[in-house]
Amino acid sequence: MRVEIVAIGTELLLGQIVDTNSTVASQKLAEAGIDCLYQTRVGDNLQRIVSVLNLALERNDAVIVSGGLGPTQDDITREAIAEVMGAPLQLNPQIEDKIRAMFASRGRTMTANNVKQAMVPAGARIIEQKKGTAPGLVCPVGAKVIYAVPGVPYEMLDMLDRAVIPDLISRAGVSGVIRSRSLRTWGLSESALSELVAPRLEALDAGDGSTTIAFLASGIEGIKLRITAKGKSSEIVDALLEAEEKELKSMLGDIVFGVDETTIEMSVAREVVRLGLTLSVAESLTGGLISSRLVSVPGASGWYKGCVVSYASEIKHKVLGVSDGPVVSESAAIELALGVRKLLGSDLGLGITGVAGPESQEGNSIGTVFVGTSSAMFGDRAIQLSLPGDRDRVRQYATISALDWLRRLLSGRIPSTGLD
Amino acid sequence: MRVEIVAIGTELLLGQIVDTNSTVASQKLAEAGIDCLYQTRVGDNLQRIVSVLNLALERNDAVIVSGGLGPTQDDITREAIAEVMGAPLQLNPQIEDKIRAMFASRGRTMTANNVKQAMVPAGARIIEQKKGTAPGLVCPVGAKVIYAVPGVPYEMLDMLDRAVIPDLISRAGVSGVIRSRSLRTWGLSESALSELVAPRLEALDAGDGSTTIAFLASGIEGIKLRITAKGKSSEIVDALLEAEEKELKSMLGDIVFGVDETTIEMSVAREVVRLGLTLSVAESLTGGLISSRLVSVPGASGWYKGCVVSYASEIKHKVLGVSDGPVVSESAAIELALGVRKLLGSDLGLGITGVAGPESQEGNSIGTVFVGTSSAMFGDRAIQLSLPGDRDRVRQYATISALDWLRRLLSGRIPSTGLD
Repeated sequence: MRVEIVAIGTELLLGQIVDTNSTVASQKLAEAGIDCLYQTRVGDNLQRIVSVLNLALERNDAVIVSGGLGPTQDDITREAIAEVMGAPLQLNPQIEDKIRAMFASRGRTMTANNVKQAMVPAGARIIEQKKGTAPGLVCPVGAKVIYAVPGVPYEMLDMLDRAVIPDLISRAGVSGVIRSRSLRTWGLSESALSELVAPRLEALDAGDGSTTIAFLASGIEGIKLRITAKGKSSEIVDALLEAEEKELKSMLGDIVFGVDETTIEMSVAREVVRLGLTLSVAESLTGGLISSRLVSVPGASGWYKGCVVSYASEIKHKVLGVSDGPVVSESAAIELALGVRKLLGSDLGLGITGVAGPESQEGNSIGTVFVGTSSAMFGDRAIQLSLPGDRDRVRQYATISALDWLRRLLSGRIPSTGLD
Repeated sequence: MRVEIVAIGTELLLGQIVDTNSTVASQKLAEAGIDCLYQTRVGDNLQRIVSVLNLALERNDAVIVSGGLGPTQDDITREAIAEVMGAPLQLNPQIEDKIRAMFASRGRTMTANNVKQAMVPAGARIIEQKKGTAPGLVCPVGAKVIYAVPGVPYEMLDMLDRAVIPDLISRAGVSGVIRSRSLRTWGLSESALSELVAPRLEALDAGDGSTTIAFLASGIEGIKLRITAKGKSSEIVDALLEAEEKELKSMLGDIVFGVDETTIEMSVAREVVRLGLTLSVAESLTGGLISSRLVSVPGASGWYKGCVVSYASEIKHKVLGVSDGPVVSESAAIELALGVRKLLGSDLGLGITGVAGPESQEGNSIGTVFVGTSSAMFGDRAIQLSLPGDRDRVRQYATISALDWLRRLLSGRIPSTGLD
């Protein structure tokens, strides 16, 4: 079963927006074990859309086309599909009534433009719209099929999950279940990680192929190990995922900070809550990035007191009590942690100080960062980091490094050398 | 002159990464006035890459293909282009030497894999590599041409700017200059903005077409009005851009906060520096987002003292001196501003307090936010905002609204009603 993804919209061709829809649709197909070998983008031009759809049907079994289902004169996907099907467009009164009712419920009147959104090519069936105005379409062309979905991302995602992917799976005669689970890691480069995991990859390759592992770079957020398992039933597949997760976690230890959607700050929160502590942070070069990440965790008000960004050096001395002298050092990082802990009244303080650039400071080169923590439970500790990149990159890496180090400290394991 | 953009890489087809390269390349083509009618993505498969390139050459005048120039066995763009050209791949000794020297300068040895990066189809010429390993290629096919550039974004962008776009422009015989300038606005919806600008659009439509305006949504960062001018020379075009910028600024007033790459925080910094003031911030729901944006402005250490994120309510009272009682109010916002100003010793304080959700607070609904400022120069002022969305969206909008309001206050204009 081969599916092509087609995204329609002149604004895509002009580079005015990024085509995230095709990326999301590709992920869904990959997770379902369906091949996608081509993806195309084309503008709001009838003749070119028709030619792209015809080519897609020729070289694949099915096409998912997003965009062009709106009410304006640029929205011509329905017309193009009707031409490809060699079928007329017909007004569907139920859809028209539904759209009219939807507008009325918002105190508005449906316009003449919206009537075109109730047109359906003869022979096609609709995918009910739950989040917007235009329904999707399932359009058979011989033994093949074109799925038309709106270009609005959450509308498209809803219809993919609810209608398109299940329909493709049943057309493909795929019996059985495919599921994935991602282990989120931080601190190792992709090549170091793949060296560590190599024995596992070999063992799986030599097995029956029901379980595979893929490496997905997550930008600054680390490397994800995505485990994918296939089997006859959910129970079998979930058991395979559990087993592989356990195996990898025992090999990787605390390089893994979470699973699937868990962020580093959520993993810090998990440990802080587990230990029944409250936390405050003293930042400088990171400017508030650490604090804003902690605040994003649901329930943060249960354990997070707040933060002092002591950007000007004198703030570090006058407000947080850092001793006169260098402010980029291990002892300054510890004093920042202690100072903010006292000022804001938390059990645990985290302090960070360093050189983001563009100039070096106090003889320390750009990327030199010290992270310190102070608490009755763990005492006073600090670590020195050496981070790559420009000013913005150093700030981002410092933020995540600090959170990761705190996570490891709290979960009971202290790295002896810091980062690889 | 029609150009197709082709992006190569199986990771794109699996949805593992977002195809930002095609978006960037499209913008460059649009700015240069060159049509892009089709964009295609294909995986690391020789036969499919060849078929996509052949189709692209058939339906266009030129192709820009990114990706597949690396050293691994998945990198087969050179082979595919050679097949399309019907030409053999030849080793270019100068490239080979250059790659070897580059590795040596980093204390590493070039591997056998990297030798393939010195292979060039007979008849093609190279685009010198300034940022990575593999050079780009300019591959004539009859009267048409394929440009091959690396998939690494900053390498691709460099070669587009330096070699590909200029070559396309000269091939297109485009004489004359096209340039754009974007006015960045915040505070009005796209429909309100287009109503305001409509007279200008009509006037330009009725003119000679040398100047046009496009609306580009910039997500949470507001709406950009992109002015594009075409003319015989840079002087003529720059004069057209100046004139239109002036016209629009006089119509829009302080809805415009900057031009091109200026961010809201840069526009705040510009005003703070102009007035010779220092600034500190008291945050709560925004958690450090305002502070981290201010710190990102080059030279912030010249005027930015720091921030206190008083996330727990008692911090607002005990550390910043907010009166007992409600903490979500205009007076609390002003007291936060005054408190942080005193604690951190700045001329100007900015305070923000509100309800991000998921629950309401002190009888205030989600999205209710108060922003206050305190200074000798402007006195004590505050404003109430009503922001849409979920917790994360409220925090983001609150951050930008607060910075925008501060900008307007400092630049001498105070909005009477806040946001539209």
